Amino acid sequence: AAANLAADDFVGISFWIISMALMASTVFFLWETQGVSAKWKTSLVVSALVTFIAAVHYFYMRDVWVATQTTPTVYRYIDWLLTVPLLMIEFYLILRAIGVASPGIFWRLLLGTLVMLIPGYMAEAGYINITVGFVIGMLGWFYILYEIFYGAAGKAAETVTSEAVKFAYNAMRWVVTVGWAIYPIGYVLGYMTGTADQESLNIIYNLADFVNKIAFGLLIWYAATSESQPMS
Amino acid sequence: AAANLAADDFVGISFWIISMALMASTVFFLWETQGVSAKWKTSLVVSALVTFIAAVHYFYMRDVWVATQTTPTVYRYIDWLLTVPLLMIEFYLILRAIGVASPGIFWRLLLGTLVMLIPGYMAEAGYINITVGFVIGMLGWFYILYEIFYGAAGKAAETVTSEAVKFAYNAMRWVVTVGWAIYPIGYVLGYMTGTADQESLNIIYNLADFVNKIAFGLLIWYAATSESQPMS
Ligand SMILES: CC1=C(/C=C/C(C)=C/C=C/C(C)=C/C=O)C(C)(C)CCC1
Ligand SMILES: CC1=C(/C=C/C(C)=C/C=C/C(C)=C/C=O)C(C)(C)CCC1
Repeated sequence: AAANLAADDFVGISFWIISMALMASTVFFLWETQGVSAKWKTSLVVSALVTFIAAVHYFYMRDVWVATQTTPTVYRYIDWLLTVPLLMIEFYLILRAIGVASPGIFWRLLLGTLVMLIPGYMAEAGYINITVGFVIGMLGWFYILYEIFYGAAGKAAETVTSEAVKFAYNAMRWVVTVGWAIYPIGYVLGYMTGTADQESLNIIYNLADFVNKIAFGLLIWYAATSESQPMS
Repeated sequence: AAANLAADDFVGISFWIISMALMASTVFFLWETQGVSAKWKTSLVVSALVTFIAAVHYFYMRDVWVATQTTPTVYRYIDWLLTVPLLMIEFYLILRAIGVASPGIFWRLLLGTLVMLIPGYMAEAGYINITVGFVIGMLGWFYILYEIFYGAAGKAAETVTSEAVKFAYNAMRWVVTVGWAIYPIGYVLGYMTGTADQESLNIIYNLADFVNKIAFGLLIWYAATSESQPMS
Protein backbone atom coordinates (compact mmCIF):
# COMPACT_ATOMS: atom_id res chain seq x y z
CA ALA A 1 0.00 0.00 0.00
CA ALA A 2 1.30 3.44 -0.96
CA ALA A 3 -0.05 4.81 2.29
CA ASN A 4 -1.72 3.45 5.38
CA LEU A 5 -5.42 3.11 5.66
CA ALA A 6 -6.83 5.56 8.20
CA ALA A 7 -9.29 4.21 10.77
CA ASP A 8 -11.93 6.73 9.66
CA ASP A 9 -11.48 6.33 5.89
CA PHE A 10 -14.65 4.36 5.34
CA VAL A 11 -14.46 4.57 1.57
CA GLY A 12 -10.94 3.14 1.78
CA ILE A 13 -12.23 0.43 4.12
CA SER A 14 -14.93 -0.49 1.61
CA PHE A 15 -12.29 -0.71 -1.16
CA TRP A 16 -10.23 -2.91 1.11
CA ILE A 17 -13.06 -5.26 2.07
CA ILE A 18 -14.17 -5.68 -1.51
CA SER A 19 -10.72 -6.31 -2.93
CA MET A 20 -10.15 -9.12 -0.44
CA ALA A 21 -13.62 -10.53 -0.92
CA LEU A 22 -13.01 -10.63 -4.68
CA MET A 23 -9.72 -12.46 -4.22
CA ALA A 24 -11.29 -14.98 -1.90
CA SER A 25 -14.22 -15.49 -4.29
CA THR A 26 -11.78 -16.23 -7.09
CA VAL A 27 -10.16 -19.01 -5.09
CA PHE A 28 -13.59 -20.28 -4.13
CA PHE A 29 -15.00 -20.45 -7.66
CA LEU A 30 -11.86 -22.06 -9.06
CA TRP A 31 -11.72 -24.76 -6.41
CA GLU A 32 -15.42 -25.44 -6.47
CA THR A 33 -15.20 -26.47 -10.15
CA GLN A 34 -14.00 -29.79 -8.76
CA GLY A 35 -17.36 -30.67 -7.32
CA VAL A 36 -19.73 -29.72 -10.13
CA SER A 37 -20.76 -31.60 -13.24
CA ALA A 38 -19.00 -30.86 -16.54
CA LYS A 39 -21.62 -28.56 -17.95
CA TRP A 40 -21.26 -26.11 -15.05
CA LYS A 41 -17.47 -26.01 -14.83
CA THR A 42 -16.90 -23.34 -17.50
CA SER A 43 -19.53 -21.07 -15.94
CA LEU A 44 -17.72 -21.26 -12.61
CA VAL A 45 -14.35 -20.58 -14.24
CA VAL A 46 -15.78 -17.50 -15.94
CA SER A 47 -17.21 -16.32 -12.59
CA ALA A 48 -13.69 -16.65 -11.22
CA LEU A 49 -12.29 -14.59 -14.12
CA VAL A 50 -14.72 -11.81 -13.33
CA THR A 51 -13.76 -11.69 -9.65
CA PHE A 52 -10.06 -12.10 -10.45
CA ILE A 53 -9.96 -9.22 -12.95
CA ALA A 54 -11.93 -7.11 -10.53
CA ALA A 55 -9.69 -8.01 -7.58
CA VAL A 56 -6.58 -6.83 -9.41
CA HIS A 57 -8.26 -3.58 -10.40
CA TYR A 58 -9.55 -3.10 -6.88
CA PHE A 59 -6.05 -3.38 -5.45
CA TYR A 60 -5.00 -0.50 -7.73
CA MET A 61 -8.16 1.49 -7.08
CA ARG A 62 -7.77 1.03 -3.35
CA ASP A 63 -4.25 2.39 -3.44
CA VAL A 64 -5.28 5.37 -5.55
CA TRP A 65 -8.08 6.13 -3.13
CA VAL A 66 -6.07 5.63 0.07
CA ALA A 67 -3.15 7.72 -1.21
CA THR A 68 -5.02 10.53 -2.96
CA GLN A 69 -8.71 10.33 -1.95
CA THR A 70 -9.67 10.74 -5.60
CA THR A 71 -11.94 8.57 -7.71
CA PRO A 72 -10.09 6.00 -9.83
CA THR A 73 -12.53 6.29 -12.75
CA VAL A 74 -10.22 4.99 -15.45
CA TYR A 75 -9.47 1.72 -13.60
CA ARG A 76 -13.12 1.21 -12.88
CA TYR A 77 -14.10 1.41 -16.54
CA ILE A 78 -11.19 -0.78 -17.67
CA ASP A 79 -12.45 -3.35 -15.19
CA TRP A 80 -16.05 -3.06 -16.41
CA LEU A 81 -15.00 -3.25 -20.05
CA LEU A 82 -13.51 -6.68 -19.33
CA THR A 83 -15.88 -8.04 -16.72
CA VAL A 84 -19.24 -6.99 -18.17
CA PRO A 85 -18.66 -8.91 -21.45
CA LEU A 86 -17.64 -11.90 -19.32
CA LEU A 87 -20.93 -11.65 -17.44
CA MET A 88 -22.69 -11.61 -20.80
CA ILE A 89 -20.79 -14.75 -21.77
CA GLU A 90 -22.31 -16.40 -18.71
CA PHE A 91 -25.77 -16.07 -20.27
CA TYR A 92 -24.49 -17.61 -23.46
CA LEU A 93 -22.63 -20.42 -21.67
CA ILE A 94 -25.54 -21.46 -19.53
CA LEU A 95 -27.78 -21.71 -22.58
CA ARG A 96 -25.10 -23.40 -24.64
CA ALA A 97 -24.52 -26.05 -21.96
CA ILE A 98 -28.03 -27.28 -22.55
CA GLY A 99 -27.79 -26.86 -26.32
CA VAL A 100 -30.14 -23.94 -26.94
CA ALA A 101 -27.75 -21.03 -27.57
CA SER A 102 -26.84 -19.30 -30.81
CA PRO A 103 -23.65 -17.20 -31.01
CA GLY A 104 -25.74 -14.20 -32.09
CA ILE A 105 -26.93 -13.95 -28.49
CA PHE A 106 -23.40 -13.27 -27.34
CA TRP A 107 -22.65 -10.69 -30.06
CA ARG A 108 -25.80 -8.72 -29.34
CA LEU A 109 -25.12 -8.69 -25.61
CA LEU A 110 -21.56 -7.52 -26.29
CA LEU A 111 -22.87 -4.72 -28.49
CA GLY A 112 -25.23 -3.63 -25.71
CA THR A 113 -22.31 -3.62 -23.25
CA LEU A 114 -20.19 -1.34 -25.43
CA VAL A 115 -23.05 1.07 -26.05
CA MET A 116 -23.64 1.17 -22.29
CA LEU A 117 -20.05 1.62 -21.11
CA ILE A 118 -18.18 3.69 -23.69
CA PRO A 119 -20.46 6.76 -23.52
CA GLY A 120 -20.51 6.36 -19.72
CA TYR A 121 -16.74 6.57 -19.63
CA MET A 122 -16.55 9.44 -22.09
CA ALA A 123 -18.98 11.40 -19.93
CA GLU A 124 -17.34 10.62 -16.57
CA ALA A 125 -13.95 11.50 -18.06
CA GLY A 126 -15.27 14.78 -19.44
CA TYR A 127 -15.23 14.10 -23.19
CA ILE A 128 -18.94 14.33 -23.76
CA ASN A 129 -21.89 15.86 -21.98
CA ILE A 130 -23.01 14.05 -18.81
CA THR A 131 -26.64 13.76 -19.91
CA VAL A 132 -25.78 12.56 -23.41
CA GLY A 133 -23.50 9.86 -22.00
CA PHE A 134 -26.23 8.82 -19.62
CA VAL A 135 -28.97 8.59 -22.24
CA ILE A 136 -26.92 6.54 -24.70
CA GLY A 137 -25.63 4.31 -21.88
CA MET A 138 -29.19 3.66 -20.72
CA LEU A 139 -30.17 2.61 -24.25
CA GLY A 140 -27.33 0.06 -24.20
CA TRP A 141 -28.53 -1.34 -20.89
CA PHE A 142 -32.17 -1.50 -22.06
CA TYR A 143 -31.03 -3.36 -25.15
CA ILE A 144 -29.31 -5.96 -22.95
CA LEU A 145 -32.46 -6.27 -20.82
CA TYR A 146 -34.58 -6.67 -23.94
CA GLU A 147 -32.32 -9.45 -25.24
CA ILE A 148 -32.30 -11.49 -22.02
CA PHE A 149 -36.02 -11.08 -21.31
CA TYR A 150 -37.71 -11.01 -24.73
CA GLY A 151 -35.02 -11.50 -27.39
CA ALA A 152 -33.39 -14.69 -28.64
CA ALA A 153 -31.78 -15.40 -25.24
CA GLY A 154 -35.08 -14.94 -23.42
CA LYS A 155 -36.86 -17.22 -25.90
CA ALA A 156 -34.15 -19.87 -25.65
CA ALA A 157 -34.42 -19.75 -21.87
CA GLU A 158 -38.13 -20.51 -22.06
CA THR A 159 -37.38 -23.92 -23.57
CA VAL A 160 -35.15 -24.92 -20.64
CA THR A 161 -36.32 -27.89 -18.60
CA SER A 162 -33.56 -28.25 -15.98
CA GLU A 163 -34.73 -26.65 -12.72
CA ALA A 164 -31.21 -25.55 -11.81
CA VAL A 165 -30.57 -23.86 -15.17
CA LYS A 166 -33.94 -22.16 -14.98
CA PHE A 167 -33.17 -20.89 -11.49
CA ALA A 168 -29.74 -19.61 -12.52
CA TYR A 169 -30.92 -17.90 -15.71
CA ASN A 170 -33.76 -16.23 -13.94
CA ALA A 171 -31.66 -15.07 -11.01
CA MET A 172 -28.92 -13.75 -13.33
CA ARG A 173 -31.55 -11.83 -15.27
CA TRP A 174 -32.77 -10.14 -12.10
CA VAL A 175 -29.25 -9.23 -11.11
CA VAL A 176 -28.85 -7.46 -14.46
CA THR A 177 -32.13 -5.63 -13.83
CA VAL A 178 -31.92 -4.72 -10.15
CA GLY A 179 -28.24 -5.07 -9.27
CA TRP A 180 -27.06 -3.17 -12.34
CA ALA A 181 -29.54 -0.36 -11.69
CA ILE A 182 -27.31 0.75 -8.82
CA TYR A 183 -24.69 2.08 -11.28
CA PRO A 184 -26.89 4.51 -13.23
CA ILE A 185 -28.49 5.58 -9.93
CA GLY A 186 -25.03 6.35 -8.57
CA TYR A 187 -24.20 8.20 -11.78
CA VAL A 188 -27.35 10.33 -11.56
CA LEU A 189 -26.76 11.15 -7.88
CA GLY A 190 -23.07 11.81 -8.42
CA TYR A 191 -23.04 13.76 -11.69
CA MET A 192 -26.51 14.97 -12.47
CA THR A 193 -28.32 15.97 -9.29
CA GLY A 194 -25.11 16.50 -7.31
CA THR A 195 -26.61 14.83 -4.22
CA ALA A 196 -23.78 12.31 -3.87
CA ASP A 197 -20.18 13.40 -3.34
CA GLN A 198 -17.14 11.38 -4.49
CA GLU A 199 -17.14 9.42 -1.22
CA SER A 200 -20.72 8.24 -1.60
CA LEU A 201 -20.35 7.58 -5.33
CA ASN A 202 -17.42 5.25 -4.69
CA ILE A 203 -19.21 3.45 -1.88
CA ILE A 204 -22.24 2.98 -4.14
CA TYR A 205 -20.15 1.61 -7.03
CA ASN A 206 -18.19 -0.66 -4.64
CA LEU A 207 -21.35 -2.08 -3.16
CA ALA A 208 -22.78 -2.62 -6.63
CA ASP A 209 -19.67 -4.52 -7.71
CA PHE A 210 -20.01 -6.73 -4.66
CA VAL A 211 -23.53 -7.73 -5.69
CA ASN A 212 -22.95 -7.96 -9.41
CA LYS A 213 -19.68 -9.84 -9.34
CA ILE A 214 -19.64 -11.93 -6.18
CA ALA A 215 -23.34 -12.55 -5.63
CA PHE A 216 -23.80 -13.20 -9.36
CA GLY A 217 -21.13 -15.91 -9.23
CA LEU A 218 -22.60 -17.36 -6.05
CA LEU A 219 -25.98 -17.76 -7.74
CA ILE A 220 -24.34 -19.80 -10.48
CA TRP A 221 -22.44 -21.80 -7.87
CA TYR A 222 -25.65 -22.43 -5.96
CA ALA A 223 -27.45 -23.71 -9.06
CA ALA A 224 -24.43 -25.79 -10.07
CA THR A 225 -24.01 -27.47 -6.69
CA SER A 226 -27.70 -28.06 -6.13
CA GLU A 227 -27.83 -29.93 -9.43
CA SER A 228 -24.49 -31.71 -9.20
CA GLN A 229 -24.61 -33.22 -5.74
CA PRO A 230 -28.14 -34.09 -4.73
CA MET A 231 -27.77 -33.76 -0.99
CA SER A 232 -28.81 -36.85 0.85
CA ALA B 1 8.63 -4.98 4.53
CA ALA B 2 9.09 -1.31 5.21
CA ALA B 3 11.60 -2.07 7.93
CA ASN B 4 13.55 -5.05 9.17
CA LEU B 5 12.36 -7.25 11.96
CA ALA B 6 14.41 -6.69 15.11
CA ALA B 7 15.64 -9.75 17.01
CA ASP B 8 13.89 -8.57 20.17
CA ASP B 9 10.62 -7.51 18.59
CA PHE B 10 8.62 -10.46 19.88
CA VAL B 11 5.30 -9.04 18.84
CA GLY B 12 6.72 -8.62 15.34
CA ILE B 13 7.98 -12.20 15.47
CA SER B 14 4.53 -13.44 16.43
CA PHE B 15 3.03 -11.50 13.50
CA TRP B 16 5.63 -13.08 11.23
CA ILE B 17 5.04 -16.66 12.42
CA ILE B 18 1.31 -16.41 12.15
CA SER B 19 1.26 -14.86 8.70
CA MET B 20 3.38 -17.71 7.33
CA ALA B 21 1.39 -20.36 9.18
CA LEU B 22 -1.80 -18.92 7.66
CA MET B 23 -0.33 -19.03 4.17
CA ALA B 24 0.80 -22.62 4.61
CA SER B 25 -2.60 -23.63 6.01
CA THR B 26 -4.25 -22.15 2.95
CA VAL B 27 -2.19 -24.32 0.64
CA PHE B 28 -2.85 -27.33 2.86
CA PHE B 29 -6.63 -26.95 2.98
CA LEU B 30 -6.89 -26.32 -0.75
CA TRP B 31 -4.83 -29.32 -1.74
CA GLU B 32 -6.48 -31.61 0.78
CA THR B 33 -9.85 -31.07 -0.91
CA GLN B 34 -8.63 -33.65 -3.41
CA GLY B 35 -8.76 -36.47 -0.92
CA VAL B 36 -12.10 -35.91 0.79
CA SER B 37 -15.57 -36.88 -0.29
CA ALA B 38 -17.76 -34.36 -2.12
CA LYS B 39 -19.76 -33.22 0.87
CA TRP B 40 -16.65 -32.03 2.75
CA LYS B 41 -14.92 -30.25 -0.15
CA THR B 42 -16.71 -26.92 0.20
CA SER B 43 -16.05 -26.84 3.96
CA LEU B 44 -12.33 -27.24 3.33
CA VAL B 45 -12.33 -24.60 0.60
CA VAL B 46 -14.03 -22.17 3.00
CA SER B 47 -11.42 -22.97 5.68
CA ALA B 48 -8.81 -22.07 3.08
CA LEU B 49 -10.56 -18.78 2.33
CA VAL B 50 -10.45 -17.87 6.03
CA THR B 51 -6.72 -18.53 6.31
CA PHE B 52 -6.05 -16.88 2.94
CA ILE B 53 -7.85 -13.65 3.79
CA ALA B 54 -6.17 -13.62 7.19
CA ALA B 55 -2.73 -14.29 5.70
CA VAL B 56 -3.00 -11.29 3.39
CA HIS B 57 -4.12 -9.05 6.25
CA TYR B 58 -1.38 -10.38 8.49
CA PHE B 59 1.25 -9.43 5.93
CA TYR B 60 -0.01 -5.85 6.10
CA MET B 61 -0.41 -5.88 9.87
CA ARG B 62 3.06 -7.26 10.29
CA ASP B 63 4.52 -4.46 8.20
CA VAL B 64 2.60 -1.81 10.09
CA TRP B 65 3.76 -3.25 13.39
CA VAL B 66 7.40 -3.72 12.39
CA ALA B 67 7.63 -0.27 10.85
CA THR B 68 5.69 1.74 13.42
CA GLN B 69 5.14 -0.44 16.52
CA THR B 70 1.51 0.61 16.51
CA THR B 71 -1.56 -1.59 16.58
CA PRO B 72 -3.09 -2.18 13.14
CA THR B 73 -6.66 -2.13 14.45
CA VAL B 74 -8.34 -1.24 11.18
CA TYR B 75 -6.79 -4.18 9.29
CA ARG B 76 -7.66 -6.57 12.07
CA TYR B 77 -11.31 -5.64 11.99
CA ILE B 78 -11.49 -5.75 8.18
CA ASP B 79 -10.09 -9.25 8.43
CA TRP B 80 -12.59 -10.26 11.10
CA LEU B 81 -15.48 -8.74 9.18
CA LEU B 82 -14.70 -11.10 6.31
CA THR B 83 -13.48 -14.20 8.14
CA VAL B 84 -16.00 -14.42 10.97
CA PRO B 85 -18.98 -14.64 8.57
CA LEU B 86 -17.06 -17.33 6.67
CA LEU B 87 -16.66 -19.28 9.91
CA MET B 88 -20.41 -18.95 10.43
CA ILE B 89 -20.92 -20.32 6.91
CA GLU B 90 -19.01 -23.41 8.03
CA PHE B 91 -21.80 -24.22 10.49
CA TYR B 92 -24.33 -23.80 7.75
CA LEU B 93 -22.35 -25.84 5.20
CA ILE B 94 -21.76 -28.75 7.49
CA LEU B 95 -25.47 -28.98 8.24
CA ARG B 96 -26.42 -28.39 4.58
CA ALA B 97 -24.15 -31.21 3.42
CA ILE B 98 -26.27 -33.65 5.36
CA GLY B 99 -29.50 -31.93 4.40
CA VAL B 100 -30.62 -30.46 7.73
CA ALA B 101 -29.81 -26.75 7.29
CA SER B 102 -32.15 -23.84 6.67
CA PRO B 103 -30.74 -20.56 5.28
CA GLY B 104 -32.17 -18.74 8.32
CA ILE B 105 -29.37 -20.30 10.36
CA PHE B 106 -26.79 -18.47 8.27
CA TRP B 107 -28.59 -15.13 8.37
CA ARG B 108 -28.98 -15.20 12.14
CA LEU B 109 -25.32 -16.09 12.64
CA LEU B 110 -24.35 -13.25 10.29
CA LEU B 111 -26.49 -10.84 12.29
CA GLY B 112 -24.79 -11.96 15.50
CA THR B 113 -21.39 -11.40 13.87
CA LEU B 114 -22.19 -7.83 12.88
CA VAL B 115 -23.59 -6.97 16.31
CA MET B 116 -20.40 -8.38 17.85
CA LEU B 117 -17.83 -6.75 15.57
CA ILE B 118 -19.14 -3.33 14.54
CA PRO B 119 -19.49 -1.92 18.08
CA GLY B 120 -16.12 -3.49 18.91
CA TYR B 121 -14.51 -1.59 16.06
CA MET B 122 -16.29 1.63 16.84
CA ALA B 123 -15.04 1.43 20.41
CA GLU B 124 -11.45 0.47 19.55
CA ALA B 125 -11.34 3.23 16.92
CA GLY B 126 -12.66 5.78 19.42
CA TYR B 127 -16.14 6.44 18.04
CA ILE B 128 -18.08 5.09 20.98
CA ASN B 129 -17.43 4.41 24.64
CA ILE B 130 -15.26 1.35 25.38
CA THR B 131 -17.75 -0.21 27.80
CA VAL B 132 -20.75 0.35 25.53
CA GLY B 133 -18.91 -1.28 22.62
CA PHE B 134 -18.00 -4.19 24.85
CA VAL B 135 -21.50 -4.79 26.18
CA ILE B 136 -23.17 -4.71 22.76
CA GLY B 137 -20.41 -6.87 21.26
CA MET B 138 -20.89 -9.45 24.02
CA LEU B 139 -24.61 -9.59 23.27
CA GLY B 140 -23.78 -10.40 19.64
CA TRP B 141 -21.46 -13.19 20.70
CA PHE B 142 -24.00 -14.63 23.17
CA TYR B 143 -26.58 -14.62 20.40
CA ILE B 144 -24.25 -16.67 18.21
CA LEU B 145 -23.64 -19.10 21.06
CA TYR B 146 -27.37 -19.41 21.69
CA GLU B 147 -28.00 -20.18 18.03
CA ILE B 148 -25.36 -22.90 17.72
CA PHE B 149 -26.18 -24.55 21.07
CA TYR B 150 -29.94 -24.14 21.53
CA GLY B 151 -31.31 -22.41 18.43
CA ALA B 152 -32.22 -23.85 15.04
CA ALA B 153 -28.62 -24.81 14.27
CA GLY B 154 -28.24 -26.58 17.61
CA LYS B 155 -31.51 -28.46 17.08
CA ALA B 156 -30.55 -29.45 13.54
CA ALA B 157 -27.24 -30.73 14.82
CA GLU B 158 -29.00 -33.04 17.27
CA THR B 159 -30.54 -34.95 14.39
CA VAL B 160 -27.14 -35.70 12.85
CA THR B 161 -26.19 -39.35 12.66
CA SER B 162 -22.75 -39.23 11.00
CA GLU B 163 -20.07 -39.54 13.70
CA ALA B 164 -17.66 -37.31 11.77
CA VAL B 165 -20.20 -34.51 11.32
CA LYS B 166 -21.17 -34.73 14.98
CA PHE B 167 -17.54 -34.50 16.02
CA ALA B 168 -16.87 -31.52 13.74
CA TYR B 169 -20.00 -29.61 14.76
CA ASN B 170 -19.31 -30.15 18.42
CA ALA B 171 -15.66 -29.17 18.20
CA MET B 172 -16.48 -26.05 16.15
CA ARG B 173 -19.02 -25.07 18.78
CA TRP B 174 -16.42 -25.28 21.52
CA VAL B 175 -13.97 -23.23 19.51
CA VAL B 176 -16.59 -20.48 19.29
CA THR B 177 -17.10 -20.70 23.06
CA VAL B 178 -13.57 -21.07 24.39
CA GLY B 179 -11.32 -19.93 21.53
CA TRP B 180 -13.35 -16.82 20.83
CA ALA B 181 -13.39 -15.87 24.52
CA ILE B 182 -9.74 -14.85 24.15
CA TYR B 183 -10.74 -11.75 22.16
CA PRO B 184 -13.05 -10.12 24.70
CA ILE B 185 -10.56 -11.05 27.44
CA GLY B 186 -7.83 -9.26 25.49
CA TYR B 187 -10.16 -6.31 24.99
CA VAL B 188 -10.93 -6.09 28.72
CA LEU B 189 -7.25 -6.34 29.70
CA GLY B 190 -6.18 -3.90 26.98
CA TYR B 191 -8.85 -1.22 27.17
CA MET B 192 -10.79 -1.58 30.39
CA THR B 193 -8.50 -2.66 33.23
CA GLY B 194 -5.36 -1.36 31.53
CA THR B 195 -3.38 -4.45 32.58
CA ALA B 196 -2.29 -5.29 29.04
CA ASP B 197 -0.25 -2.87 26.94
CA GLN B 198 -0.36 -2.74 23.12
CA GLU B 199 2.35 -5.42 22.89
CA SER B 200 0.42 -7.92 24.98
CA LEU B 201 -2.88 -7.10 23.31
CA ASN B 202 -1.44 -7.87 19.89
CA ILE B 203 0.14 -11.10 21.07
CA ILE B 204 -3.17 -12.17 22.59
CA TYR B 205 -5.13 -11.39 19.42
CA ASN B 206 -2.49 -13.12 17.26
CA LEU B 207 -2.59 -16.23 19.38
CA ALA B 208 -6.38 -16.24 19.28
CA ASP B 209 -6.36 -16.00 15.49
CA PHE B 210 -4.04 -18.98 15.34
CA VAL B 211 -6.51 -21.12 17.29
CA ASN B 212 -9.69 -19.82 15.71
CA LYS B 213 -8.56 -19.85 12.11
CA ILE B 214 -5.98 -22.61 11.73
CA ALA B 215 -7.07 -25.02 14.45
CA PHE B 216 -10.71 -24.53 13.47
CA GLY B 217 -9.91 -25.55 9.90
CA LEU B 218 -7.84 -28.49 11.08
CA LEU B 219 -10.79 -29.83 13.07
CA ILE B 220 -12.88 -29.81 9.92
CA TRP B 221 -10.05 -31.44 7.99
CA TYR B 222 -9.75 -34.10 10.71
CA ALA B 223 -13.44 -34.94 10.55
CA ALA B 224 -13.42 -34.91 6.74
CA THR B 225 -10.46 -37.22 6.37
CA SER B 226 -11.56 -39.61 9.11
CA GLU B 227 -14.84 -40.08 7.29
CA SER B 228 -13.53 -40.05 3.74
CA GLN B 229 -10.73 -42.53 4.06
CA PRO B 230 -11.46 -45.02 6.83
CA MET B 231 -7.93 -45.82 7.95
CA SER B 232 -7.13 -49.48 7.63
C1 LIG C 1 -26.72 2.43 -17.58
C2 LIG C 1 -25.55 3.39 -17.39
C3 LIG C 1 -24.39 2.98 -16.76
C4 LIG C 1 -24.34 1.58 -16.33
C5 LIG C 1 -23.27 0.89 -15.92
C6 LIG C 1 -23.34 -0.51 -15.54
C7 LIG C 1 -24.64 -1.22 -15.53
C8 LIG C 1 -22.19 -1.12 -15.18
C9 LIG C 1 -22.12 -2.47 -14.78
C10 LIG C 1 -20.97 -2.98 -14.32
C11 LIG C 1 -20.86 -4.32 -13.84
C12 LIG C 1 -22.03 -5.20 -13.76
C13 LIG C 1 -19.67 -4.76 -13.44
C14 LIG C 1 -19.54 -6.06 -12.88
O1 LIG C 1 -18.62 -6.76 -13.08
C15 LIG C 1 -23.24 3.95 -16.55
C16 LIG C 1 -22.06 3.54 -17.43
C17 LIG C 1 -22.81 4.01 -15.08
C18 LIG C 1 -23.62 5.39 -16.91
C19 LIG C 1 -24.45 5.48 -18.10
C20 LIG C 1 -25.75 4.77 -17.90
C1 LIG D 1 -17.26 -10.30 22.24
C2 LIG D 1 -16.48 -9.06 21.90
C3 LIG D 1 -15.48 -9.05 20.95
C4 LIG D 1 -15.25 -10.33 20.25
C5 LIG D 1 -14.53 -10.56 19.14
C6 LIG D 1 -14.41 -11.86 18.54
C7 LIG D 1 -15.04 -13.05 19.16
C8 LIG D 1 -13.70 -11.95 17.39
C9 LIG D 1 -13.49 -13.17 16.69
C10 LIG D 1 -12.66 -13.21 15.64
C11 LIG D 1 -12.37 -14.41 14.94
C12 LIG D 1 -12.91 -15.71 15.38
C13 LIG D 1 -11.59 -14.35 13.87
C14 LIG D 1 -11.21 -15.54 13.19
O1 LIG D 1 -11.10 -15.63 12.02
C15 LIG D 1 -14.70 -7.80 20.63
C16 LIG D 1 -15.07 -7.30 19.23
C17 LIG D 1 -13.19 -8.04 20.71
C18 LIG D 1 -14.98 -6.66 21.62
C19 LIG D 1 -16.40 -6.57 22.01
C20 LIG D 1 -16.85 -7.83 22.68
